[in-house]
Amino acid sequence: MTEAALFTTPEMASVFAPRAHLRAILRFEAALARAEARAGVIPREAAEAITAACDVDQFDVAALYAAAVDAGTLAIPIVRALTAHVGGGDDAGRFVHWGATSQDAIDTALVLQMRDGLGLLEDDLLALCAGCAAHAEAHRRTVMAGRTLLQQAVPITFGLKAARWLALGTRRLRALRALREDALALQLGGAAGTLAALGDHGLVVAGYVAEELTLPVPDLPWHAERDRVAMIAGAVGLAAGAMEKIATDIVLLAQTDVGEVDEGAATGKGGSSAMPHKHNPVDAAAALAATRLAAGSASVILAAAGAHQHERAVGAWQAEWNAIPDLFRYAAGAIAHARRSVCGLEVHRDRMAANLARGGGVVMSESLAMALAPHVGRPEAQRIVREAADRAAAEGNTLRDAALAHEGIRAALSPATVERALDPAAYLGSTDSFIDRALAAYRAILGRADAG
Amino acid sequence: MTEAALFTTPEMASVFAPRAHLRAILRFEAALARAEARAGVIPREAAEAITAACDVDQFDVAALYAAAVDAGTLAIPIVRALTAHVGGGDDAGRFVHWGATSQDAIDTALVLQMRDGLGLLEDDLLALCAGCAAHAEAHRRTVMAGRTLLQQAVPITFGLKAARWLALGTRRLRALRALREDALALQLGGAAGTLAALGDHGLVVAGYVAEELTLPVPDLPWHAERDRVAMIAGAVGLAAGAMEKIATDIVLLAQTDVGEVDEGAATGKGGSSAMPHKHNPVDAAAALAATRLAAGSASVILAAAGAHQHERAVGAWQAEWNAIPDLFRYAAGAIAHARRSVCGLEVHRDRMAANLARGGGVVMSESLAMALAPHVGRPEAQRIVREAADRAAAEGNTLRDAALAHEGIRAALSPATVERALDPAAYLGSTDSFIDRALAAYRAILGRADAG
Amino acid sequence: MTEAALFTTPEMASVFAPRAHLRAILRFEAALARAEARAGVIPREAAEAITAACDVDQFDVAALYAAAVDAGTLAIPIVRALTAHVGGGDDAGRFVHWGATSQDAIDTALVLQMRDGLGLLEDDLLALCAGCAAHAEAHRRTVMAGRTLLQQAVPITFGLKAARWLALGTRRLRALRALREDALALQLGGAAGTLAALGDHGLVVAGYVAEELTLPVPDLPWHAERDRVAMIAGAVGLAAGAMEKIATDIVLLAQTDVGEVDEGAATGKGGSSAMPHKHNPVDAAAALAATRLAAGSASVILAAAGAHQHERAVGAWQAEWNAIPDLFRYAAGAIAHARRSVCGLEVHRDRMAANLARGGGVVMSESLAMALAPHVGRPEAQRIVREAADRAAAEGNTLRDAALAHEGIRAALSPATVERALDPAAYLGSTDSFIDRALAAYRAILGRADAG
Amino acid sequence: MTEAALFTTPEMASVFAPRAHLRAILRFEAALARAEARAGVIPREAAEAITAACDVDQFDVAALYAAAVDAGTLAIPIVRALTAHVGGGDDAGRFVHWGATSQDAIDTALVLQMRDGLGLLEDDLLALCAGCAAHAEAHRRTVMAGRTLLQQAVPITFGLKAARWLALGTRRLRALRALREDALALQLGGAAGTLAALGDHGLVVAGYVAEELTLPVPDLPWHAERDRVAMIAGAVGLAAGAMEKIATDIVLLAQTDVGEVDEGAATGKGGSSAMPHKHNPVDAAAALAATRLAAGSASVILAAAGAHQHERAVGAWQAEWNAIPDLFRYAAGAIAHARRSVCGLEVHRDRMAANLARGGGVVMSESLAMALAPHVGRPEAQRIVREAADRAAAEGNTLRDAALAHEGIRAALSPATVERALDPAAYLGSTDSFIDRALAAYRAILGRADAG
Repeated sequence: MTEAALFTTPEMASVFAPRAHLRAILRFEAALARAEARAGVIPREAAEAITAACDVDQFDVAALYAAAVDAGTLAIPIVRALTAHVGGGDDAGRFVHWGATSQDAIDTALVLQMRDGLGLLEDDLLALCAGCAAHAEAHRRTVMAGRTLLQQAVPITFGLKAARWLALGTRRLRALRALREDALALQLGGAAGTLAALGDHGLVVAGYVAEELTLPVPDLPWHAERDRVAMIAGAVGLAAGAMEKIATDIVLLAQTDVGEVDEGAATGKGGSSAMPHKHNPVDAAAALAATRLAAGSASVILAAAGAHQHERAVGAWQAEWNAIPDLFRYAAGAIAHARRSVCGLEVHRDRMAANLARGGGVVMSESLAMALAPHVGRPEAQRIVREAADRAAAEGNTLRDAALAHEGIRAALSPATVERALDPAAYLGSTDSFIDRALAAYRAILGRADAG
Repeated sequence: MTEAALFTTPEMASVFAPRAHLRAILRFEAALARAEARAGVIPREAAEAITAACDVDQFDVAALYAAAVDAGTLAIPIVRALTAHVGGGDDAGRFVHWGATSQDAIDTALVLQMRDGLGLLEDDLLALCAGCAAHAEAHRRTVMAGRTLLQQAVPITFGLKAARWLALGTRRLRALRALREDALALQLGGAAGTLAALGDHGLVVAGYVAEELTLPVPDLPWHAERDRVAMIAGAVGLAAGAMEKIATDIVLLAQTDVGEVDEGAATGKGGSSAMPHKHNPVDAAAALAATRLAAGSASVILAAAGAHQHERAVGAWQAEWNAIPDLFRYAAGAIAHARRSVCGLEVHRDRMAANLARGGGVVMSESLAMALAPHVGRPEAQRIVREAADRAAAEGNTLRDAALAHEGIRAALSPATVERALDPAAYLGSTDSFIDRALAAYRAILGRADAG
Repeated sequence: MTEAALFTTPEMASVFAPRAHLRAILRFEAALARAEARAGVIPREAAEAITAACDVDQFDVAALYAAAVDAGTLAIPIVRALTAHVGGGDDAGRFVHWGATSQDAIDTALVLQMRDGLGLLEDDLLALCAGCAAHAEAHRRTVMAGRTLLQQAVPITFGLKAARWLALGTRRLRALRALREDALALQLGGAAGTLAALGDHGLVVAGYVAEELTLPVPDLPWHAERDRVAMIAGAVGLAAGAMEKIATDIVLLAQTDVGEVDEGAATGKGGSSAMPHKHNPVDAAAALAATRLAAGSASVILAAAGAHQHERAVGAWQAEWNAIPDLFRYAAGAIAHARRSVCGLEVHRDRMAANLARGGGVVMSESLAMALAPHVGRPEAQRIVREAADRAAAEGNTLRDAALAHEGIRAALSPATVERALDPAAYLGSTDSFIDRALAAYRAILGRADAG
Repeated sequence: MTEAALFTTPEMASVFAPRAHLRAILRFEAALARAEARAGVIPREAAEAITAACDVDQFDVAALYAAAVDAGTLAIPIVRALTAHVGGGDDAGRFVHWGATSQDAIDTALVLQMRDGLGLLEDDLLALCAGCAAHAEAHRRTVMAGRTLLQQAVPITFGLKAARWLALGTRRLRALRALREDALALQLGGAAGTLAALGDHGLVVAGYVAEELTLPVPDLPWHAERDRVAMIAGAVGLAAGAMEKIATDIVLLAQTDVGEVDEGAATGKGGSSAMPHKHNPVDAAAALAATRLAAGSASVILAAAGAHQHERAVGAWQAEWNAIPDLFRYAAGAIAHARRSVCGLEVHRDRMAANLARGGGVVMSESLAMALAPHVGRPEAQRIVREAADRAAAEGNTLRDAALAHEGIRAALSPATVERALDPAAYLGSTDSFIDRALAAYRAILGRADAG
């Protein structure tokens, strides 16, 4: 649907387009024929003829989809059409789809599409990580308010925030890559998972098909045990969910009342049909919407994963045919919009500093209390500082003034110590190390990407 | 996406096609202009020119969707294009979208599309009800096993089962119809829900726009209070969920090992790419898949409904743009496939009777116990009958033989009474009345449909 | 679990406590016996003895729950224990649970508990509405920024925001009340929904049981058609979801950087274990958490609603036993915390005014453009005002200064007109009417509550 | 709640009981104090006094939970109470919770509880795998119908079905174990994730605390990046979902009309309050219900994972406090009930054989077609066998008779070849190898469990 254009990418739309789906099924059929020829199950000439006929341009995509409604699956009309292309009777057509079942073709095709889709997600996630890494470096010391429960808490730096996004993106990228080793496995089980129609050649043929398609061979066919599919859905869903975290932070920082970042104002971006002044964070907004949509599709897959009856499910399996493409499309949209938002993000140091000073600097209360604690204990320090903060609020004063005036604080700390305790830039703890660690983890996967 | 063809209907696909979406937005803009002319807010000639320009054929749908990616909403490029069509400067173009905001156009357009979509769902649901009603009449006395926890329990009739499907369909149809009165309301609030740009004319204009579009006027704009949308999603989701119940019963009855119904074998329907003998219940299977997909889309809408910040949401609103069309498409698929399955269902009385006799007729154990209970009390009657049923099982006998031989039963009941107690057709309780009630409720809504 | 205390209320915890569950089941058994005596199905003395024995204090709640694990349902050990209490043999015990099945007892008991639970939710929702109504009245003219996509848009009043919360609460309250008429129906169907064990007396007995329990009689038993349960879950879930909207607005307004409301600082409320200055909006936070938990439980019920096989489900039904109590408990927590937050909310007019002036008053740009539009058309007006707003931003100026200096604006509007167009209090459109409508709808349900 | 007893285990209930929660928080506080003493941040005597005071028996659990309602978190009243126990003023109490924040204590405590909970899940999953492995061995050659879309397809063996359950259980067990290495990490970040209150000692202290608790140290604190929590929820949810697959197969095989397995009839297990003959598969039913409940709790965690704002979430975090315990409790119930069902499962070979012969053996149609295909090609072979199967159905004959009579088959195959093609036991393909592989994978993890 064209409306999906808002929440996906053209590349991902192509990977899961009907034509690409058909191509992947044909790729399976060709690989099967070649594997069976290698195993001596069907003649080599037949395999060659079938391979030659598996050309997507020779098929009428729309007609095949229409026929699938009655057949209940796309594989049946495709096998029929492919057989007709190759020629029946004594010809190679008699060896089309030999020993396989519809689900073998459909599941393996979907695995191939998912592998392509994961490649796209990984690329975009890597680009997002690059954007985060740049912010982490550039704003390593850009002090801003840390906020818990949306209340200012203690200072952090924008670099640390970006480093946390980076670490999150890096972990999710690693998780997507890990799917290739196990979850993206060949499906070949025949009618009910025994490969009976291949007699003694089942395992050999399966091995060859997997080689042809560069896919791992699973221990057992997984026609009705869909935990691998659920793992993929979970990992893709989590990658999209990571975008929600990042986009949430961005829309909160971009609030008019906070103003610490904005998405930039490319021509036509984020305007309003009613309000001339508006610059909406439209990429972050679209990322948030796409994340919600991806979560819905992931939930369909997760809910279906355990509901596969016996040797092939009635309903739970078929739902995957749409839910998986939907998930990948929406996840692509989430990541692409988040990447655009992060990579174009303008950061306003002045507003960060101004907001940190808001309320007279009470965001430094923990720092002051920790300075005081060695002298009077943590509980008493907290009591005293709370008193000073309350006085500052009541008198419209800064915490600095109230602290310098408070008898309990003056008794324990010199004015210079109070000043130091109230300096946000001096109260950043392990911020630098955390940024370093996030960058190191990112560089480690980057190295793998360069090498790979 | 073409793959969606398996799990929707062409009619519903049209209602939510990009072109239909654009048409609905233009319908809003035209209605707004006419309403504002009636209220004296803009010149009548401007309204006429705008109405004339709101012709979907004059717009490049794909270009508008492409522009929406940067704008963050489809309304902005549409308003821009419409203004250009009408002519700017001193022309009517200056009055396009007067006093409204993007959300007004998009929400109201979606309401119009949902109204069309509900009409389609209602029609198909009514056709499904007709199929259920026919089965309820025809099989009023077709005795079969009632099954609880998938174990045979006591006899019912297939007519009663169909009547329960009918009652369910009838209730869900009534619920869909009820949405028109309140949930499908006009959205017109202006930039932040105050209609400020319309000065004192806001309520009057809103009333006129609602008249133009035959929509109810809500008490307040609902831009950020989405309980109405959630109600629609809930009702549509429940209608789809009702299909799951019906399709679940059908696939269970259609099991090879039960064989009490099948979907019929239209040419090409339900075959297998591997197994020549198979007649899969493909419509019920597709209904089950579509139901799962609809549930995923409904969950997106329900999860978003409360997450709308302040006067317009960032993310939760935009997610509706895809989730609502997805929901309607999948719900249409669920209902259409269930209708096809029910209306073409072949019912095998002989298998129903044979299955009922399975296990020596222990399905009549409650009946026998209730016959015995007035003599020995319910607990003792249960104990005796359980003993008889266990003996029958151990000896490979029927419950009838075991009962006639059991001393405790012989002491209390005559052989004729035992025979009567073991006749499934005589142990149907209020079955007839329940069927009558379901038919009456169906005819009541049918009357309204004929009149309406 | 004690941890649930954070996210429910003691009252709701009581309604769904094991003891209350047992009491409700006994209430069903007693009503059944009395109804059967009235219908002449069992002796009056037996019904009296059974009624007398249905005293929750005579049962060992923990032992019954333990026995339920093997039995698969609580009804079986309860019926056994009740029979033992009444006395078997020739005594009344032989008439316990006559003609009913476990599901009749468990479903009807749950309906009774849900009715009590809905009463509690309605009461708390009404109290929340009262709080919203008070704010709507008190802050009818407290001007603040309307915010869309978290960007300041145009002015609204806090009274309007509270009125929208009120309208939402009022609608959800009406929806909960509506459940009593249809969704909260008696369940009595016997082993497989035919009432066969009651012979010709089934409908009469069902009518009497419903009378005894003041419940509506449904057209048909609903043992495996759970749309009623789903409707309840949907309505309760939506009521909880409404709390998410309100609490979301509150936590956003309570941000340190916005500061327009706070929850007040009762002793010990909202402090931090690390930061002496913090006053977290803990009730809104708890409401948000409880809403998420309620959504999870609602989703279990909705997902299960269509999955009921044949005449009684294996799994989908049993899941309701926990999901429904969980839903009611969490919904109670969501509403109670939201009520506490709203009713104790302190509103800071000064911060609202200050935030509105932020950015030099560009929030008035639509107002200015609408003043200009009759002179130059809407598109040109938007262009001019955008230019003025950009200049103001670039020069660190106010929109007022930039507007008064802009040649295009000066050509069309007098300085006084510009001033008027920049006054937020003069750009509120239909705000007053909307507040009136919300209050009127609230008073209408309030009247019903007083009368009822 | 006691009702949860039906869907959890007593052991898991203990791990997440309030007392165990408090104990875990105290364990964190003690470990923190000792780590800080090792790092020279607080005096060794203080750490000893704090450790000594961290004794759960010295605290009033109910009072702490009550205080948490106002505080918004359990950590605050616990820190207050612990400080009081240790003694304030110059005493060790002044060093309680030094440099930490509430979330550090609560998150790390939850990690400790989850580690215990995972241990329980793993043990029960291993026991379930043992049951599956026993069936896989014992029924390696117990031929039964493979069923796709609930239609008989081709033969499999019950051993293969059990082997697929085993492989599924083994994969899920491996996935749970893998969580220990990364997902179950220490949380220690201080007020906003910088460890600022620990000055230069942050990383050292974090390392020591992790040592004390035998937990991995994460690269960065994860207070607002909850992908680890989501990974745990995903893996536990998938483990529960695997139970759905197994229990679904069991309830389908246990249908009266199939009768291939039953759960056995321990006294009191699976009876009915109405029908004396019933033996319900109550453990599989409870597993299915618990799986649904677990899915609901997992969905809360997954939906919340991306919604954590800034440095600590308002709502999304707090929801985990209940959703995680709920998930573990329900998952424990799902696995325990599935284990009971599988390990006690009685398998009826005779019914499997009888069902396989049902319909005249058409389940062998693919086998026959594959025997014919080398002679006439796959498409023609399918056509011929479909014709034979249809004739058999029409004439009430077996496929064997129809095949031996069919001219097309007789022309190609000898009667002996036909007989061989119709022998289910000779059409099992790679069944044996698949069983071997599943057993080998199981033994590999079993080895690790014995060693570990």
